[in-house]
Amino acid sequence: MSDRPRAVVVVTGSELVRGERTDRNGPFYAREALSLGLDPERIVIVGDDPGDLESALRSADGADVCLVSGGLGPTHDDRTVELVARVARAPLRVDPELESRIEAVSRAAAERLGRPYADFAPGVTKQATVPEGAVVVGIAGTAPGLVVAGERTVYVVMPGPPGELRRLWPAAVASDPLRQVLARATPPERRVLRFYGVSESAVARALADAGGDGAGVEVTICARDFEIHVDFVVEPGAGERADVLAASFVEPLRRYLFTEDQRTVAEIVLGECRARGLRLATAESCTGGLVAARLTDVPGSSDVFVGAVVAYANEVKVTQLGVPESLLAAHGAVSAEVAAAMADGVRRLLGVEVGIAVTGVAGPAGGMEAKPVGLVHFHVSTQEGGRGGELSLPGDREAIRARATVAALHLARRVLAQSRHEVV
Amino acid sequence: MSDRPRAVVVVTGSELVRGERTDRNGPFYAREALSLGLDPERIVIVGDDPGDLESALRSADGADVCLVSGGLGPTHDDRTVELVARVARAPLRVDPELESRIEAVSRAAAERLGRPYADFAPGVTKQATVPEGAVVVGIAGTAPGLVVAGERTVYVVMPGPPGELRRLWPAAVASDPLRQVLARATPPERRVLRFYGVSESAVARALADAGGDGAGVEVTICARDFEIHVDFVVEPGAGERADVLAASFVEPLRRYLFTEDQRTVAEIVLGECRARGLRLATAESCTGGLVAARLTDVPGSSDVFVGAVVAYANEVKVTQLGVPESLLAAHGAVSAEVAAAMADGVRRLLGVEVGIAVTGVAGPAGGMEAKPVGLVHFHVSTQEGGRGGELSLPGDREAIRARATVAALHLARRVLAQSRHEVV
Repeated sequence: MSDRPRAVVVVTGSELVRGERTDRNGPFYAREALSLGLDPERIVIVGDDPGDLESALRSADGADVCLVSGGLGPTHDDRTVELVARVARAPLRVDPELESRIEAVSRAAAERLGRPYADFAPGVTKQATVPEGAVVVGIAGTAPGLVVAGERTVYVVMPGPPGELRRLWPAAVASDPLRQVLARATPPERRVLRFYGVSESAVARALADAGGDGAGVEVTICARDFEIHVDFVVEPGAGERADVLAASFVEPLRRYLFTEDQRTVAEIVLGECRARGLRLATAESCTGGLVAARLTDVPGSSDVFVGAVVAYANEVKVTQLGVPESLLAAHGAVSAEVAAAMADGVRRLLGVEVGIAVTGVAGPAGGMEAKPVGLVHFHVSTQEGGRGGELSLPGDREAIRARATVAALHLARRVLAQSRHEVV
Repeated sequence: MSDRPRAVVVVTGSELVRGERTDRNGPFYAREALSLGLDPERIVIVGDDPGDLESALRSADGADVCLVSGGLGPTHDDRTVELVARVARAPLRVDPELESRIEAVSRAAAERLGRPYADFAPGVTKQATVPEGAVVVGIAGTAPGLVVAGERTVYVVMPGPPGELRRLWPAAVASDPLRQVLARATPPERRVLRFYGVSESAVARALADAGGDGAGVEVTICARDFEIHVDFVVEPGAGERADVLAASFVEPLRRYLFTEDQRTVAEIVLGECRARGLRLATAESCTGGLVAARLTDVPGSSDVFVGAVVAYANEVKVTQLGVPESLLAAHGAVSAEVAAAMADGVRRLLGVEVGIAVTGVAGPAGGMEAKPVGLVHFHVSTQEGGRGGELSLPGDREAIRARATVAALHLARRVLAQSRHEVV
């Protein structure tokens, strides 16, 4: 428990409470609340049953802020605004200015669809009916985003589509009722440490050995994307304690620490290449293009990343990457030798300085005693030579491919860091 | 509201309630509950504050089933079992058989880590302390999965790691207390319809025009991965009404319907090729390998999918795919002409019958007035000819790339379906 103002998130959507779609608004609201200095206490997901939604909203009564998404559509099933008004004890009324904005959108839609506006009119009035005193922070399609000040709780009511919610959120943060709550909140300082190649439990033990968190420093250890992400949330005044704890905690883990900021391993690899004028390509078998996809996910990657050859069939390894057939025959496609030949091959083929190769058995079929499902070979080839690696990865096909992708990028990161030091 | 037994999901984890990680257990539990004939009413996510967790568990009191995950670790912060015992009014006691199982795991871990077992002993006793009468359904690491029959509510308590929870879940479903609840539940019939190329609102309108859902047929319309997925949940006895509704609903949308089962578009494309002995390759620019990754995500894709060339730099388009430099100069890399040359080029280069090509402006930089961010050209080349397509996609880099990937696969699906009919 902290003395930060408390926030409860209420998300509504039948497909969400049935698990047919994974909610993205709850995590977004929670992260935003935390960064503003609020304490996200609970995320509640309910369907469109009005009783369920009302009781979720009532359970937030007494929190400083209730962050709501979904249920703002034009039909009678969408009852979020009506129920927020009831819980906040604010009478509903039609907002004429809002009504004319929604009407304009609806008239345009009616024309586009070739339908009479009369079909839309009841929905327009419904969506323009808001709690008295509500601040309209924008509209998404025909759905308004609202901030409603209840007796104890400020309700932020946003449309369900995640992109629309994110777009309207800054205006909600800037609204008077929410600003009054935020005036009582001090955003905590955040620190980030990211490790690779060490287990979550070893990181937890290092934290405990360093004295553990508490006293204004809250530490979350989280395995994500096969890396260990450690977040420090530091209350005002606890900066010095956080420094001491972080230093002593990091000490035994230093060789696994790869960044102290939010950069991904793909960004680090691209940045390292860019700084040294190196260009990069990948040769992929079991990852099927995922390493290339991860690299090109980074905006501006095109000055470093040139391309990739996905050599799924062995003939592509031979004809495109120049892997000798004799090598494939002698060692098999999943071998250190073939990984090295793929990395060298793509470097030569595309005329780049750095080649990253992955070959493995993603399963579920294709495993053998000598080469079981999960066996993956990696190789990173540079002008100064190469370095290989081998992992036996647990999990299903998706997990093996995802983890092999991350492992390939981390091998490239280490090779680049090392060759930088050697050159210096 | 239905008369199905009600299920409430309670998920605990500080990183989840802070939005640092997206919960996967809530949606899993909800989907499973629904398919077993339960009514998933609410998903609540709380941190490790015991007050918050207890009140979340109390809010489930009265539901038939409460599905819980997380907070089962060996330390004092992990209080789920203790709080479930309190809410279920079951006294805690050490289960000697469970204790010896956990001890064996911990002794092995102590040895592996070179630490004294005494460090682990308190955790072992803590994790073997369970509500009286609890059914132990398995252990994950040292954490037991439990089923606890309260006075009105059956609690299923599972470890937080999603893979472990999924592994132990079947044993929980088979446990006596849960079977007694499930005996009162009739699993609904599910029907799936998937559309591409039509808006969510047009699908919603078609449903309303067909009479809408209700009377034992619940319909969810959900835009997912740029497709529109429509799920029918049909209560026992409402099968005929579902047939009539589905037939009249699908009628105006038939040209957009691409499957009535759970197959993904990648599976459909691979299946169509496989049935006709065709092999497949991709040539990708802005998607950077995502189309290949999506295809190779399907187990067994290697008999159809041969490989890919990610031609991110123009020189790779020229040297590998044989796109004429004059074509690039005349039309630019993002053009119908270059997409066609890429598709033909990869087909020739890798010696396959079907080539899929994508080239576009993913942004955020690189847009121009004539070729703005979001413009993407597609081409599918087959032995019988080719077909191109062009889209202006909204959203950020990630959304544009994801949507272009799906669009490329759907173009291939349509080309393959059409050429099949032409051959017949």
